[in-house]
Amino acid sequence: MQVFRTVADLRRWSRALRSMSGLAPGNSIGLVPTMGALHAGHASLIRAARAACTHVAVSLFVNPTQFGPNEDYTRYPRSFDADCALAERGGADVLFAPSVEELYPNGPASTFVEVPGLGDRLDGASRPGHFRGVATVVAKLLIAAEPDRAFFGQKDAAQVAVLRRMVADLKLAAEIVVCPIVRDADGLAISSRNVYLNPSERAQALTLSRAVRHVESLVAQGERRAHMLIASAHGVFAAEPEVRIDYIVLVDWSTLEPVETAAPGTLFAVAAYFGSTRLIDNTVLR
Amino acid sequence: MQVFRTVADLRRWSRALRSMSGLAPGNSIGLVPTMGALHAGHASLIRAARAACTHVAVSLFVNPTQFGPNEDYTRYPRSFDADCALAERGGADVLFAPSVEELYPNGPASTFVEVPGLGDRLDGASRPGHFRGVATVVAKLLIAAEPDRAFFGQKDAAQVAVLRRMVADLKLAAEIVVCPIVRDADGLAISSRNVYLNPSERAQALTLSRAVRHVESLVAQGERRAHMLIASAHGVFAAEPEVRIDYIVLVDWSTLEPVETAAPGTLFAVAAYFGSTRLIDNTVLR
Repeated sequence: MQVFRTVADLRRWSRALRSMSGLAPGNSIGLVPTMGALHAGHASLIRAARAACTHVAVSLFVNPTQFGPNEDYTRYPRSFDADCALAERGGADVLFAPSVEELYPNGPASTFVEVPGLGDRLDGASRPGHFRGVATVVAKLLIAAEPDRAFFGQKDAAQVAVLRRMVADLKLAAEIVVCPIVRDADGLAISSRNVYLNPSERAQALTLSRAVRHVESLVAQGERRAHMLIASAHGVFAAEPEVRIDYIVLVDWSTLEPVETAAPGTLFAVAAYFGSTRLIDNTVLR
Repeated sequence: MQVFRTVADLRRWSRALRSMSGLAPGNSIGLVPTMGALHAGHASLIRAARAACTHVAVSLFVNPTQFGPNEDYTRYPRSFDADCALAERGGADVLFAPSVEELYPNGPASTFVEVPGLGDRLDGASRPGHFRGVATVVAKLLIAAEPDRAFFGQKDAAQVAVLRRMVADLKLAAEIVVCPIVRDADGLAISSRNVYLNPSERAQALTLSRAVRHVESLVAQGERRAHMLIASAHGVFAAEPEVRIDYIVLVDWSTLEPVETAAPGTLFAVAAYFGSTRLIDNTVLR
């Protein structure tokens, strides 16, 4: 596995593969953008990229512009050596680990990409500027690597909606591929931030997947009314009064606008704080 | 010359050239972004692209998002057949003429690119949102065509500064190439908007190039103080009291920030209204 630190090196690799595609027409490039602290969720993205593409790059970059001023940018878990090992085991050909200065040569407050209408919904509502930072850095990564496909987890469902809109609007060539949520044995969606939880918060955090499963079962029983589904999910959280709910919503997955009636493809999503740790979970209804 | 209407067609052309570059390593792609209404200034850009690149695409797109609500979007001159003829005579291989829906599939109010710090200076100050529109559409064109070089006129000097910053920040591969201002015999910088001028306004508009030449001659005589150069330029305009000055500035060309002392590479720029027509001119000091 090659490790690149600059966009120039990454693009040289990508364009060399493309320039050979006259000779090897099946070549395709998969990109797995991550903030490092790789876990089983990321491993599943790398496996999916490995299966769908002939060449795979994994990016590791803790993106400062997607963190709010009082968020966990400085203490976000960083584990470069373990990340390298996981990416290589997963079959990555390239690890792209740029510095902040490489991706923000004029500082974090310079050129940005904004997705109006979606960027301020769900996590974008509770984390102002978050999706602007995400859209900006993913645009840079897609421009740099010029992949055929980029792989993201469904856990970050609102992020997926923002990025799909951005890719369509900016005419980026990459297809956004969404991979299923990976969960621990007890149901908790795997997240790099789960390491912040103490044992009591870890137990409370199961409320997220419990609410998700509860809503799925109600829908399976025929309930379609958004207000009933949302009220039921609030009921699940009522058993854990220490937990602070951020949002519980039923939205159209492409617009992130609230719906009144659940339909196939509707997104049920939930976010809550366990101590000071904010976690999210969701399901896309059948 | 091929005419493409979709990004998919343009990218297929560009990537086919790149995929052959293993076989033809000298291949290079030049893009000349225009709003149509092509004139001798554009012709010089196409010639420069033709000289520097093995393949040349000219885009024609009157970009709605760079016009203010009370500006001339609907009456901006459109001359598709003449533009095709001029581009073909200039040696363009491809003319890219997308619809508004093709470049803004989710409408003009969707995803945008903003260049803070530069985007609200000079023309961006008098035309709020103008450079956001320019940055957004040029980002899309560079993403779609993936050119090695993109050609712009120095007449739009602030635009050049905004786009150079954007290209650096978004990690776009294209080099921004700037071509000299092309002038009519009487000195007026050629612009698609010159057709709006009546004979009296046309005569007044010569004040722009007169002010530019006056400042150049003062600098040649050793004057370096910004306030003196700017005051002298105002003096040139004093002879035409009907003309409304928008700005007369001496700025660093890369940051667009005012300077106190002229130096090689400093930008002297001027904008003014002749009737309802706003025109600009500038010089980069030696």
